Amino acid sequence: MPTVPALATAGADQDLKRSTIERREPGAHDVVIDIAFSGVCHSDIHQARSEWGAGNFPMVPGHEIAGTVSAIGAEVSRYQVGDRVGVGCFVDSCRECENCVAGEEQYCLKGNVGTYNGRGYDGEITYGGYSTQVVVNENYVLGIPEAVALDAAAPLLCAGITLYSPLKHWQAGPGKRVAIIGLGGLGHMGVKIAHAMGAEVTVLSQTLSKAADGKRLGADHYYATSDEQTFKDLRNQFDLIINTVSANLNMDAYLSLLRLNGTLVNVGLPTEPASYQTFSLVGGRRSLAGSMIGGIRETQEMLDFCAKHGFGADIEVIGIDEVNEAYKRVLASDVRFRFVIDIATLHAPATS
Amino acid sequence: MPTVPALATAGADQDLKRSTIERREPGAHDVVIDIAFSGVCHSDIHQARSEWGAGNFPMVPGHEIAGTVSAIGAEVSRYQVGDRVGVGCFVDSCRECENCVAGEEQYCLKGNVGTYNGRGYDGEITYGGYSTQVVVNENYVLGIPEAVALDAAAPLLCAGITLYSPLKHWQAGPGKRVAIIGLGGLGHMGVKIAHAMGAEVTVLSQTLSKAADGKRLGADHYYATSDEQTFKDLRNQFDLIINTVSANLNMDAYLSLLRLNGTLVNVGLPTEPASYQTFSLVGGRRSLAGSMIGGIRETQEMLDFCAKHGFGADIEVIGIDEVNEAYKRVLASDVRFRFVIDIATLHAPATS
Repeated sequence: MPTVPALATAGADQDLKRSTIERREPGAHDVVIDIAFSGVCHSDIHQARSEWGAGNFPMVPGHEIAGTVSAIGAEVSRYQVGDRVGVGCFVDSCRECENCVAGEEQYCLKGNVGTYNGRGYDGEITYGGYSTQVVVNENYVLGIPEAVALDAAAPLLCAGITLYSPLKHWQAGPGKRVAIIGLGGLGHMGVKIAHAMGAEVTVLSQTLSKAADGKRLGADHYYATSDEQTFKDLRNQFDLIINTVSANLNMDAYLSLLRLNGTLVNVGLPTEPASYQTFSLVGGRRSLAGSMIGGIRETQEMLDFCAKHGFGADIEVIGIDEVNEAYKRVLASDVRFRFVIDIATLHAPATS
Repeated sequence: MPTVPALATAGADQDLKRSTIERREPGAHDVVIDIAFSGVCHSDIHQARSEWGAGNFPMVPGHEIAGTVSAIGAEVSRYQVGDRVGVGCFVDSCRECENCVAGEEQYCLKGNVGTYNGRGYDGEITYGGYSTQVVVNENYVLGIPEAVALDAAAPLLCAGITLYSPLKHWQAGPGKRVAIIGLGGLGHMGVKIAHAMGAEVTVLSQTLSKAADGKRLGADHYYATSDEQTFKDLRNQFDLIINTVSANLNMDAYLSLLRLNGTLVNVGLPTEPASYQTFSLVGGRRSLAGSMIGGIRETQEMLDFCAKHGFGADIEVIGIDEVNEAYKRVLASDVRFRFVIDIATLHAPATS
């Protein structure tokens, strides 16, 4: 079993530290990926700190992985050595349940295998992208088109698909008014994708501090939710609202912004229960929904969509020794819009 | 202005008593309806007791009205004297907003005019069906097909359309698994309509006490929600769940019964906020929605659908002097499945 460098945390109250992990020998259908870049997702922090339940430690986060195929198993047909590839939030699923069969492996009824902090069906803990190499079954590997740089592609594997999937499912497009709550790693992808789909896009952010960015990314309108007038002006306006914020909001206030038959989709995961007045749904036949990443087929479709429209994520590339600091900045919303770790710095000696 | 007998309440803490009200002279587009039957809806109780906000008193409840046209205004074209007609939950709407234009007057953005406890755009308080006559603009009057008796038709105007509209909107039909929570006035219509639409229908009721009724009405399956095993057995089963209960339930438990892309639609209106874990929506791309009665066009469609399938509501006909007692029985779920007031008894002398 190859031993490879990684950035790991030993427990929920620990910082990440350089370490090593073992990767499995590639099986017949496995692809060995030399990781070039790994995005820093807010959920990495939730999991590293056991905020979504007790984590499996040591934990190597990272499910926004972009790199190059360096070896393949004997029966791999989908990829070749040298291919630009990515790995998202899961690396296996049961392949048998109705959701897997429908290509919606993210909702695998047996429970798919998380890219990190999970357990493979063999019982082994999975380790994510904050490492130099990963071994993944070819069916769970995505192809990254040439038109998107690997560093800007990495966040598409989680942030990109997390927004693409609900925007597609709820039919964002020409004639549709779409609002994105929050302009962070998820939200900025929502603006780009909804705009590229042809929808009229509004950002609902706490303040106007990122308004220029929002417009540059493709937003048609930008409102501050700290201003009560926003909720008066935008009443009954939207066909679709995607909520990327993982803290609890005043759901009734946001639901009032939906038109008849409108849907508010949560893609963030607050740890506390949310509440709503039933009338906020009944008046206007509104829906409150949730969506979680996307399936493999749809993730590939999203990557091809982004390539066609010529964009990846807006990123800030950091070295492996800056990740603990980056976590603090993510929590302070101080990143435009996604940190991506240059994994080359994990090969190099430590800088701190 | 004609003075007509009515059953009215003088305040939120009062019983209903025989009284009289004035009806307007019919305008050019008005239809005068001699009321034959008026259903007793749970929302009559909520409103008579000011549980949905302060009521307009004196209040004459009743928005499940069936009767016969006894006079028409000079320019009425849709109805003739002698026609069997009904009136549901509203008697006017702005006719200009995007929802009215779309035929979804129940969601009128200006606010439609409730059949009772409302105010017409002329400022006058509206009085409902617990009276002998009502005057309604022809555009808000429904035709009751010959195939449905007037008494069994009355509850269709609220209970029927309240279930028909979401079942149609969320595409209940062959191949779809539909659950109805609660087998009361609303729920029993849900079972009949969903069954007639071709869906596989399951009733989720607190106990099995009404199981035989449920099966007779068309349910394929019947489960007690007081049995924890129900929630294990039915996990990930339903495409659509209609919640007819107006008390707050454990939403997370019910959401877990939805398949991928499933929707739980609330048609009852609890007075307290409801809560849910966001993950209950995100895991399985589930939706929590609401629906409120239906538009005029769709209400007519529902009446024609029921006639085609040969059913109305299952009712218990009562006299006007039994309504206060009936309210108590509604609150105790002691009715199969809807009380309907025989308005002829309001013409006759009091019996108590």
